[in-house]
Amino acid sequence: MTIKTLGILGGGQLAAFIAQAARTLGISPIIMTPHADDPAVAIADKVFIAPWRDAEHLDQFSRACDVITVDSENIDYAALNYLCGRAVLRPSLAALGIFQDRLSERTFLQALNIPSVPFAAIAYDGDIRDAMAELGLPAVLKTRFGGYDGKGQTAIQSTTQAQHAFMQIAEQPAIYEKFINFSKEISCVGARGLHGQIEFYDLIENQNENHMLRQSVVPAAVSETIQQQAQQIFTRIVQALDYVGVLAVEFFLLPDNTLLVNEIAPRVHNTGHFTLDACLHSQFTQHVRAICGLPLGTTQRLANATMRNIVGEEVYAAQQWLYTPNAALYLYGKKDARAGRKMGHVTTLSAL
Amino acid sequence: MTIKTLGILGGGQLAAFIAQAARTLGISPIIMTPHADDPAVAIADKVFIAPWRDAEHLDQFSRACDVITVDSENIDYAALNYLCGRAVLRPSLAALGIFQDRLSERTFLQALNIPSVPFAAIAYDGDIRDAMAELGLPAVLKTRFGGYDGKGQTAIQSTTQAQHAFMQIAEQPAIYEKFINFSKEISCVGARGLHGQIEFYDLIENQNENHMLRQSVVPAAVSETIQQQAQQIFTRIVQALDYVGVLAVEFFLLPDNTLLVNEIAPRVHNTGHFTLDACLHSQFTQHVRAICGLPLGTTQRLANATMRNIVGEEVYAAQQWLYTPNAALYLYGKKDARAGRKMGHVTTLSAL
Repeated sequence: MTIKTLGILGGGQLAAFIAQAARTLGISPIIMTPHADDPAVAIADKVFIAPWRDAEHLDQFSRACDVITVDSENIDYAALNYLCGRAVLRPSLAALGIFQDRLSERTFLQALNIPSVPFAAIAYDGDIRDAMAELGLPAVLKTRFGGYDGKGQTAIQSTTQAQHAFMQIAEQPAIYEKFINFSKEISCVGARGLHGQIEFYDLIENQNENHMLRQSVVPAAVSETIQQQAQQIFTRIVQALDYVGVLAVEFFLLPDNTLLVNEIAPRVHNTGHFTLDACLHSQFTQHVRAICGLPLGTTQRLANATMRNIVGEEVYAAQQWLYTPNAALYLYGKKDARAGRKMGHVTTLSAL
Repeated sequence: MTIKTLGILGGGQLAAFIAQAARTLGISPIIMTPHADDPAVAIADKVFIAPWRDAEHLDQFSRACDVITVDSENIDYAALNYLCGRAVLRPSLAALGIFQDRLSERTFLQALNIPSVPFAAIAYDGDIRDAMAELGLPAVLKTRFGGYDGKGQTAIQSTTQAQHAFMQIAEQPAIYEKFINFSKEISCVGARGLHGQIEFYDLIENQNENHMLRQSVVPAAVSETIQQQAQQIFTRIVQALDYVGVLAVEFFLLPDNTLLVNEIAPRVHNTGHFTLDACLHSQFTQHVRAICGLPLGTTQRLANATMRNIVGEEVYAAQQWLYTPNAALYLYGKKDARAGRKMGHVTTLSAL
């Protein structure tokens, strides 16, 4: 079946870039989001503004779309589940479900024997004490559901803090993670096509600030062996899920050169934005190709790249980047420059 | 003044690419076109669908836009003239006016002492005979106004054809051009900023088919001297007009290495489409930067490129290009695949 319409659940900048990529390939982009002023709304061919659990709108949306994808793994599960029987959802409900829950994400990795950050499940207050005894301090308490950009996370340095941490996250189901003293944060962004083709972009080295991606540098300064290990782990993850689309695996690289999986995002990823400028096919085009059953494009890099997020009020000074001739500025058109909100990014290229 | 809204007269694929570039820089794109199904309509923030000479819509459009540009030099002159006193038009009315008329374009080049194709002005039937005596055969008769992609052109091989040629173009004012036996067709695409900054992309080598661009290859296989000569001519043209925006100069390169100007387009240009993939800043981003008074970006090329137009019914087989991993496909979303209509293009990259 030839895909003519592509639905996206969510209307943020990731949705906008996917929509633009779809349009360029002759596929009509359709958005469903609860927020009328989301960036992707302006460039979609059709828009459904409705709460996630509005069955009538979900019906209309599913009928309008040949294939449906998401701009976030945190789209309401009931909505995803409702759409699943009525439309083609890529990535699958199973994959999205696993990565909506930090606990099932970790259990999935354990089942595959993929090294990840040591953790314990927290359901009750008392679990924290047990986890602390087992995994020690410092640690991080993270809600199982709905966290991103450091939201729903609490660092624990001391026994006293541990006692408060569970309250701080409103006693939601959580995981207690050992704090990892890593030497680098790395991500691997790649795609798996409908017929199993896998293509990776080069490894990306990331710097965070306030639990949020500040800057990504490509290529990551890591050995060929690390690159291969990361790609092998990526491959095992996507094959185990029969995954279709772009996916990102975030790793900690330890001082002894061990790779631990930190997090998995079943979608296009902030650390992959450099592909808009440094590669012929961006992660967004690649995602559209994958979920539409089209062949994947080359992921070869044409330049070295540094991608920097423009966050909150930084957007008011963003035009300064226009004075850097080798910098490409992307503004997302969000009206409200709230603190910690991703307002745009800028990619600087240098010769290979 | 900071530009927040950018108006485009015309809604074709060039307008769509300009609109997308503007949006990415945080500038809201607004379209005015007589055709509701034009490609740019779907991605503009505001659209005015009206005939060019609809004063009320022109008023509204001019009030909505901080700066106004065109996607074609052939936008109705009366409309441009009406807007000129009411809005900021870039490029200027003077520049657009000169290049709407092949005769004034040639007189302009003569005044600058820039070598172009030998021609004679044709107003009456009898002028053809005189022109034939002066310039010889073969020749081409071209209408002064409104021609593009070979429309309004008639090749003249013989005296008999010459007698019919003027009738064939409905006795419109025309120019009679000596047929040039060139060795290459070359174009120079570049931009001039509001404060006089000039940036060129590398020279492009073009192949035509049925009077229409078939394929462009970058870099053109020409000497450094030819590149410099072309850029000098470009510079003299844009400086003479105090030109602001992207402009393309098409040249014939003769077997003796002389460069003749064939045509000038005061806008983004089909032969510059390779910049979408092979450069950090496309010609569209560069045009937006120029007309908004922003600094120009680098024009450095990251790869070698071949750009091929997808014309008419070729669009039905366009998906074949997705099987070429280093090819990027652009479809313009035009519904009617008329013969000779540009429906999309594909750019193939190879390493520098």
